Amino acid sequence: MVPHLVTALTGPLLELEKRMLDSTAQIERWFRLAWQENTPPFYTSVDVRNAGFKLAPVDTNLFPGGFNNLPADSLPLAVQAAVSAIDKICPDAKSLLLVPERHTRNTFYLTNVARLMQILKQTGLEVRLGSLSEDIVAPTQLDLPDGQHLLLEPVVRKGSRVGLKDFDPCAILLNNDLSAGIPDVLKNLGSQVLLPPLQAGWAVRRKTKHFAAYDGVTESFGEMLGIDPWLINPYFSGKAGINFHERVGEDELAQAVDALLTRIRSKYAEYGITETPYVVVKADAGTYGMGIMTVKSPEELLNLNRKQRNKMSVVKEGLEVTEVILQEGVHTFESLNDSVAEPVVYMIDRFVVGGFYRVHTERGRDENLNAPGMHFVPLAFETPCNTPDCFGNPDAAPNRFYAYGVIGRLAALAASIELEQTQSIGDLS
Amino acid sequence: MVPHLVTALTGPLLELEKRMLDSTAQIERWFRLAWQENTPPFYTSVDVRNAGFKLAPVDTNLFPGGFNNLPADSLPLAVQAAVSAIDKICPDAKSLLLVPERHTRNTFYLTNVARLMQILKQTGLEVRLGSLSEDIVAPTQLDLPDGQHLLLEPVVRKGSRVGLKDFDPCAILLNNDLSAGIPDVLKNLGSQVLLPPLQAGWAVRRKTKHFAAYDGVTESFGEMLGIDPWLINPYFSGKAGINFHERVGEDELAQAVDALLTRIRSKYAEYGITETPYVVVKADAGTYGMGIMTVKSPEELLNLNRKQRNKMSVVKEGLEVTEVILQEGVHTFESLNDSVAEPVVYMIDRFVVGGFYRVHTERGRDENLNAPGMHFVPLAFETPCNTPDCFGNPDAAPNRFYAYGVIGRLAALAASIELEQTQSIGDLS
Repeated sequence: MVPHLVTALTGPLLELEKRMLDSTAQIERWFRLAWQENTPPFYTSVDVRNAGFKLAPVDTNLFPGGFNNLPADSLPLAVQAAVSAIDKICPDAKSLLLVPERHTRNTFYLTNVARLMQILKQTGLEVRLGSLSEDIVAPTQLDLPDGQHLLLEPVVRKGSRVGLKDFDPCAILLNNDLSAGIPDVLKNLGSQVLLPPLQAGWAVRRKTKHFAAYDGVTESFGEMLGIDPWLINPYFSGKAGINFHERVGEDELAQAVDALLTRIRSKYAEYGITETPYVVVKADAGTYGMGIMTVKSPEELLNLNRKQRNKMSVVKEGLEVTEVILQEGVHTFESLNDSVAEPVVYMIDRFVVGGFYRVHTERGRDENLNAPGMHFVPLAFETPCNTPDCFGNPDAAPNRFYAYGVIGRLAALAASIELEQTQSIGDLS
Repeated sequence: MVPHLVTALTGPLLELEKRMLDSTAQIERWFRLAWQENTPPFYTSVDVRNAGFKLAPVDTNLFPGGFNNLPADSLPLAVQAAVSAIDKICPDAKSLLLVPERHTRNTFYLTNVARLMQILKQTGLEVRLGSLSEDIVAPTQLDLPDGQHLLLEPVVRKGSRVGLKDFDPCAILLNNDLSAGIPDVLKNLGSQVLLPPLQAGWAVRRKTKHFAAYDGVTESFGEMLGIDPWLINPYFSGKAGINFHERVGEDELAQAVDALLTRIRSKYAEYGITETPYVVVKADAGTYGMGIMTVKSPEELLNLNRKQRNKMSVVKEGLEVTEVILQEGVHTFESLNDSVAEPVVYMIDRFVVGGFYRVHTERGRDENLNAPGMHFVPLAFETPCNTPDCFGNPDAAPNRFYAYGVIGRLAALAASIELEQTQSIGDLS
């Protein structure tokens, strides 16, 4: 079962998919060389949107959950990719501490953690769970719906190393995006490998920095492939010094939205696209679809009511929003039984290991699909992303997923460049 | 559908599978460290035999055919593994020349070649086929049953490089085992990468060297896992100076068989195994099940008729047999609808990418299943080899295949050590 793509709009995209399909060897070599220059993040998930006329990432997550939503045939690929990653990062490693999110009672999330542990164990590591939560003061068993159990233990700092009471791991893997800031227990670690690095957490990370890096990546990729990078890259701009509560910076924000809409309209005119352009305003640091809104005109920003302003003011862990990213909205034109479907691509190291659709029945094509309380139905990709069918239709499932995998990897490459650029900030933390 | 394993005999093996399952993290780490010391062959297939009381490789092929027999979900794993391999061996490579076997009209084999090309292209390489056959003097199109075509072109030597008329590849991959000797066109190549190295061809390679290396590998692995290496290693010895036609060396051969049978009987006694031991006599260099026979007593060797002696005298490409390996026979106790089933495990680089069973209706448990004219039915492994189910029965399909993958990798590791030991011979060629 593969979501239906509204075909009236597939003109430019079909051309793009064709170009990708005809150039798989060049694309793969381009990535091969790019990954020699840049270290891939340990893992990445990328929210991709397919507008029919445009295929682009809208969010890049460096602490992906949802591994449990991937198709069954992703597991061997994930294991193999993780073996490659560990081989490169810490080839002698015996043991690894996995640090999950603090909301420990969400069984969907815990199933993701169990899946991650399964993958990591199969690379030849003893894997245990270390919690940053104040609620976990002693080893705590959590039960999963499938009958498995997880043992969550409080992390312990000893000198320049972090671990558990009786466990001194070679490496630490964060599955916690540090929205609450960088905890002292993780600062100034000595010889232990910490993955991803601290600057990948939302205490340091900024979406504008990510998409600035993505600009460079798509410019170079577009040149190699002979395509307009806009077809795979949403316009964006950033704005600091905002206070939604006190209505500080509203005018500048409205002007910035206006400027962005003008740029989008000009591209729509160039390609004869008759859709209504829109802009997504998001907290520059943060996740989980909090602090996010969609606007079609600058005026909408000037007329926010108190509830809307409250909603924009804070993100996860109560972090206050003062910097925002304005991002060109990319319509989602994939649907399944009238529900909007948004693909998410998963990578470990430089390999696409699988993906799934977030299928959401109550939201429109131009709305954010990763909102609090959102109840999506995961629909696993029907075929892997690394085996295009060069004899098939450019929009055949393996080929569409190949294109998604290319976009996902471009975003992961941007993340890798972004992390290199912000390394000094992480080191200072 | 997974072949049935005769359960009355699974005692010691079940124990071995249990031990492997309980120790997957240690096993994977052991391999991780071993592959740091030793370069894996580019690709390997290993014939494994499961005797219920013993699980061992009987043949290691460094020019595997049969990629087309692997399950569909092997393809993404194979692509990912090949990306890893190319990354390491020739990261800048743009193009590769694949050199197939000379028997160009076998459509099964050609389908394997098409599958290999598909895998290699997806690593970012332009791939073309170069033939060593005298029959191919101009580009020749070969049609495959599925409607695909292959273009076979004569290899061309220019100075210290080999390629095609208009194609100067960065690397050359042999899918030709050089049974006919090392052709001049491949000797003394300059900067081109040649995979596998020349000493992997049967012009240089000897099975006794391979199994001597396997002795060392299983000794170390057995120590780590706390098992008797015999459970995963067939006894063997070698004999040179044989001439079957002229009955030279027959007596020594019979004595060597006797000595080997004595060693096997002693192990059978130790484990209470009541099966009849047997020895397989094979050409020390060569393949395709030619020059091979099964004996249960030394006398059988002294009473060979002319036809049997002829059969033992030559292998593929008319190579004369003067050196043999005597190998402990490993019974095959897997069967499917009363047919004997022998697993074959496929690796690219250090990764097990899949496997299949050779299911043969006309042969017994103690016969060679890879004989000329053999018509096996391939049965793809039902699950991948790198995702054991630690909560399942030790003999559940994913766990049995995991064990096969471990044995396959031990043999690949032995091949890697063997190729390092024989490197100087290859360099001289």
